Amino acid sequence: MRLLYINPNSTVSMTEGVVAVARAALPEAEVTGWTNHDGPPAIQGPEDGAAAVAGVLALLPAARHEGVDCIVIACFDDTGLAEIRGAAHCPVIGIGQAAFHMAVLLGHRFSVVTTLAVSVPVIAGNVASYGFGGHCAKVRASGLRVLEVDEGSPATIARLAEEIALAESQDGIGAAVLGCAGMASLLPVLRDRTGLVLVDGVAASARFARALVGP
Amino acid sequence: MRLLYINPNSTVSMTEGVVAVARAALPEAEVTGWTNHDGPPAIQGPEDGAAAVAGVLALLPAARHEGVDCIVIACFDDTGLAEIRGAAHCPVIGIGQAAFHMAVLLGHRFSVVTTLAVSVPVIAGNVASYGFGGHCAKVRASGLRVLEVDEGSPATIARLAEEIALAESQDGIGAAVLGCAGMASLLPVLRDRTGLVLVDGVAASARFARALVGP
Amino acid sequence: MRLLYINPNSTVSMTEGVVAVARAALPEAEVTGWTNHDGPPAIQGPEDGAAAVAGVLALLPAARHEGVDCIVIACFDDTGLAEIRGAAHCPVIGIGQAAFHMAVLLGHRFSVVTTLAVSVPVIAGNVASYGFGGHCAKVRASGLRVLEVDEGSPATIARLAEEIALAESQDGIGAAVLGCAGMASLLPVLRDRTGLVLVDGVAASARFARALVGP
Amino acid sequence: MRLLYINPNSTVSMTEGVVAVARAALPEAEVTGWTNHDGPPAIQGPEDGAAAVAGVLALLPAARHEGVDCIVIACFDDTGLAEIRGAAHCPVIGIGQAAFHMAVLLGHRFSVVTTLAVSVPVIAGNVASYGFGGHCAKVRASGLRVLEVDEGSPATIARLAEEIALAESQDGIGAAVLGCAGMASLLPVLRDRTGLVLVDGVAASARFARALVGP
Amino acid sequence: MRLLYINPNSTVSMTEGVVAVARAALPEAEVTGWTNHDGPPAIQGPEDGAAAVAGVLALLPAARHEGVDCIVIACFDDTGLAEIRGAAHCPVIGIGQAAFHMAVLLGHRFSVVTTLAVSVPVIAGNVASYGFGGHCAKVRASGLRVLEVDEGSPATIARLAEEIALAESQDGIGAAVLGCAGMASLLPVLRDRTGLVLVDGVAASARFARALVGP
Amino acid sequence: MRLLYINPNSTVSMTEGVVAVARAALPEAEVTGWTNHDGPPAIQGPEDGAAAVAGVLALLPAARHEGVDCIVIACFDDTGLAEIRGAAHCPVIGIGQAAFHMAVLLGHRFSVVTTLAVSVPVIAGNVASYGFGGHCAKVRASGLRVLEVDEGSPATIARLAEEIALAESQDGIGAAVLGCAGMASLLPVLRDRTGLVLVDGVAASARFARALVGP
Repeated sequence: MRLLYINPNSTVSMTEGVVAVARAALPEAEVTGWTNHDGPPAIQGPEDGAAAVAGVLALLPAARHEGVDCIVIACFDDTGLAEIRGAAHCPVIGIGQAAFHMAVLLGHRFSVVTTLAVSVPVIAGNVASYGFGGHCAKVRASGLRVLEVDEGSPATIARLAEEIALAESQDGIGAAVLGCAGMASLLPVLRDRTGLVLVDGVAASARFARALVGP
Repeated sequence: MRLLYINPNSTVSMTEGVVAVARAALPEAEVTGWTNHDGPPAIQGPEDGAAAVAGVLALLPAARHEGVDCIVIACFDDTGLAEIRGAAHCPVIGIGQAAFHMAVLLGHRFSVVTTLAVSVPVIAGNVASYGFGGHCAKVRASGLRVLEVDEGSPATIARLAEEIALAESQDGIGAAVLGCAGMASLLPVLRDRTGLVLVDGVAASARFARALVGP
Repeated sequence: MRLLYINPNSTVSMTEGVVAVARAALPEAEVTGWTNHDGPPAIQGPEDGAAAVAGVLALLPAARHEGVDCIVIACFDDTGLAEIRGAAHCPVIGIGQAAFHMAVLLGHRFSVVTTLAVSVPVIAGNVASYGFGGHCAKVRASGLRVLEVDEGSPATIARLAEEIALAESQDGIGAAVLGCAGMASLLPVLRDRTGLVLVDGVAASARFARALVGP
Repeated sequence: MRLLYINPNSTVSMTEGVVAVARAALPEAEVTGWTNHDGPPAIQGPEDGAAAVAGVLALLPAARHEGVDCIVIACFDDTGLAEIRGAAHCPVIGIGQAAFHMAVLLGHRFSVVTTLAVSVPVIAGNVASYGFGGHCAKVRASGLRVLEVDEGSPATIARLAEEIALAESQDGIGAAVLGCAGMASLLPVLRDRTGLVLVDGVAASARFARALVGP
Repeated sequence: MRLLYINPNSTVSMTEGVVAVARAALPEAEVTGWTNHDGPPAIQGPEDGAAAVAGVLALLPAARHEGVDCIVIACFDDTGLAEIRGAAHCPVIGIGQAAFHMAVLLGHRFSVVTTLAVSVPVIAGNVASYGFGGHCAKVRASGLRVLEVDEGSPATIARLAEEIALAESQDGIGAAVLGCAGMASLLPVLRDRTGLVLVDGVAASARFARALVGP
Repeated sequence: MRLLYINPNSTVSMTEGVVAVARAALPEAEVTGWTNHDGPPAIQGPEDGAAAVAGVLALLPAARHEGVDCIVIACFDDTGLAEIRGAAHCPVIGIGQAAFHMAVLLGHRFSVVTTLAVSVPVIAGNVASYGFGGHCAKVRASGLRVLEVDEGSPATIARLAEEIALAESQDGIGAAVLGCAGMASLLPVLRDRTGLVLVDGVAASARFARALVGP
């Protein structure tokens, strides 16, 4: 199976991190990652998201030409998901969408821990419009910028672990969803720190891609 | 106020029809219409919608340069609304969205009469994700193609009137929403034929644009 | 266009304040304000709201006789909206309803900042029954009484600005809705203080009234 | 327990029929019925409902003076429920509301069979705003006027039985809710004809009134 | 009327406490309580709930043989409600379900105060799936274990009163629902302490049982 | 991966059919199927479902002992899903749940075609409580009994194809979900007949099981 992650932002290191996590989650697939060089360096809020859509759409003909079997939008905001899905020759899922479905299929009510407050309305709006409002307790901002998250310093990890612990103690949940593509590689250390079930949309999307496409 | 209608499809006559209706609804505004020449000739289903997004996004810098005060996406599917809104320098509304808000503010439960069945899931999904599921009885396909609707032959008018009458007798509604930009100019004749309150998203969007932007 | 604001409470200064804001928002309309002298001095909670309905309904024949084109219920609780709408000869909207539609059409997820805690369930119930549950983060009580708000002392402004700032930092929103008719005249100063997009239902209702009625 | 049914319409025979059904459902209560002589002869659509609210509200002081323990609004539209509840000194329920809660507590997904199509949006709106959208399959109009239903001729019974049978065969339900106060006395004969579980809001409200008030 | 409370957990003192509250709420009924000796000593989280279902189902033939008229699942999680209802010969309600319906019929938006955080997702999930998401502000954990609640020490009462007071001051509600069968007997003292309307599902279920079954 | 299908009904041929479809969908897994010999021969309506839960729960210790990695409830009603999930040592999904998630992740609005009308409220209730009400157009009964479906005669296939064609022409959908475990093996022939995207919960659950469990 040829699985393509399209990173809507232009930060190549984020694409590489996403591909590494996806390959670990689905070793038998041929996972590739494309960076949207026309996008903003990070997607923080709806303006950044919108600025990324055209560049992502422009990559679809090449994806079709390469015979890609499934496309994943590698931004937790699922930016442009409906439009990209409509334009693509194959199934398209978003890492936010994948994370929500994974938490629900595992039987958990969840909170999301994301980066800046500017992303909270986008994510909360997605949760509501997908129909998962009854499964989601809260969308929480850590106050960390996307690129800070991507760097993964000890201070960043501590801040995320702290917010996850707050979610666990205050929100009445069974799992926390990591609300940024850049958090995917931090899942093991955060799970060790917090002891809570954590769901990452990058690994989830890889696994769902195989579920959708087979074999 | 400078009000810009962007027609996501490439059919110039539809743009012209939309602009005429908008100007009649809001004579004091400076209404212009741009056609997305990179789009499909009509938007029938999600693939067509997606194929239109990049072209619409590409028009935004010019819209900003022209000092446009509000942008309306002139397709009832509200294609790319979230993304275009995020990228724009001014408020952006869709004609589907505008029609639903108008029906609700007028106090009516409504059904939608649209073109082909392929558009029903797109519209029904929008209604649900906007939160208007409790206000909408049914989304009905007339079986007419978008360009047939745009031509507005007597047979087309008869078919639409028939479907509106079915909605009135079967759906328990107070208003019918015309579910295609091309139906806007047919509203007077359809109202005469059916006697039901009809809501058209083109006129609604012009009026809401002024409400959002003022004065 | 003849636009009538009916203040369900008996405080004439609030009616005057509402009319002033509405006229500023819609200078070309003939805006009048009627006070329900049979209502309580302020509407704080469902009992006050109910005590006001009969008096408002009793004003409808005169409104019809005056040839009013649109009626606005000038209480953020939208008290009696469904019933008044049913009895009126023209469209009827509420300032709460108008504020929610305005925030949503502008593309914002929002929180509401209102007066006393006793009004929170009324407003939250309205938000849910209108279908805007997925767009509204939280309804917040400032602890201020309606008539305190109407006086608009520096302490009142400081308290409101503080609660708006809390909403901005904690709720993940793009706009705050001012949840009391008496806050309408404070919008400019509160916007200067907070920097957040603020939505006031009095101005919103004036603009929507014109959108509904035209031209 | 003193239980008061307020019939929002001015047809005394309907009040008497409602009281008879309520007394049969709750023999130990002191059930009285008041007719709103200021209301329309029947409530068919939102205008009629609104025209009835002021008259009902005007009866509340007398109800308080009589020491009534619970008030039931004896119209399936639950007209003015929120406002009357706010103004009353005791719990207030509507017969529509009571019927929906009864069907749900009995574990049934249901359809409603009501009178004219003009009442369908009111009832469907109530169902949605109460949160029962997921429990209700359809609101069906029988095409019968309220006063025809109240007369209960053989033709009326046949028409209702026919619509209930359609609901059973097409809607995938476990119960049908009788969507008009005037159908309450027809429940036994309709149950014999159809074999389906039928829920009547008059009897349901009497029983819930006792549940709310005790002992 | 023969009314059977089935306590899904194996703690006999809880069964006895529940029966005492139900008898006080419905003195004319013949109330019995059965303990599921195959269940866990307390139901704290979904695992405990699931471990209790088979034992409860095994009691149904005896309930039928005894001619029971209505069964109440005496755990606030309503564990196994759908399945037990399907298998039973008579109506089945849960005390959580009953409490939510009671608060709604009384006209209140509510918060729930329960025991441990592990029960919050179960209760919040029930609220959402029943359709009461728009009526419920928050599900709050007191941090008390079920058996601590059952003992009802002064410290327990103080903790519950404190959490109820927080709900009243922060959640914008008209009533608090006591979210554990073991809190039923504490209702009078908690009401005296807090002054808020409190709803207990044990008494509510007894009263609704009579409403469902009659006479 | 050890994947266990538990058939809640006692018809061994249905278990065998389900296992065959699951193995074809996930050849690398070790798929086994257990039949609930204490269940009814087919699950048609809530009573049958409830009668099956205890027997399914009784199989869980053996499943744990066998080291099963994921359990699938092989009945489209997802009978007992919440309870079985709570009691199990590993993830548990239902074939109805899996089918809905699959349709949604593929981007389709869907209708369900099931067996008898008695199953419609169960399935529609599940759809609503899972949050997929906005994605599902209609739950349709074919009028076929479960065991008729399992036999798969030409007349049965013709009836199912007819109902799927009705769903396609009337419901405005992108996919039809096969609403019975016994339909899984008929998917290829039905797809050939109808040309519509069809989703079967047995194959979907096998693929999701791998997504949840890995590797």
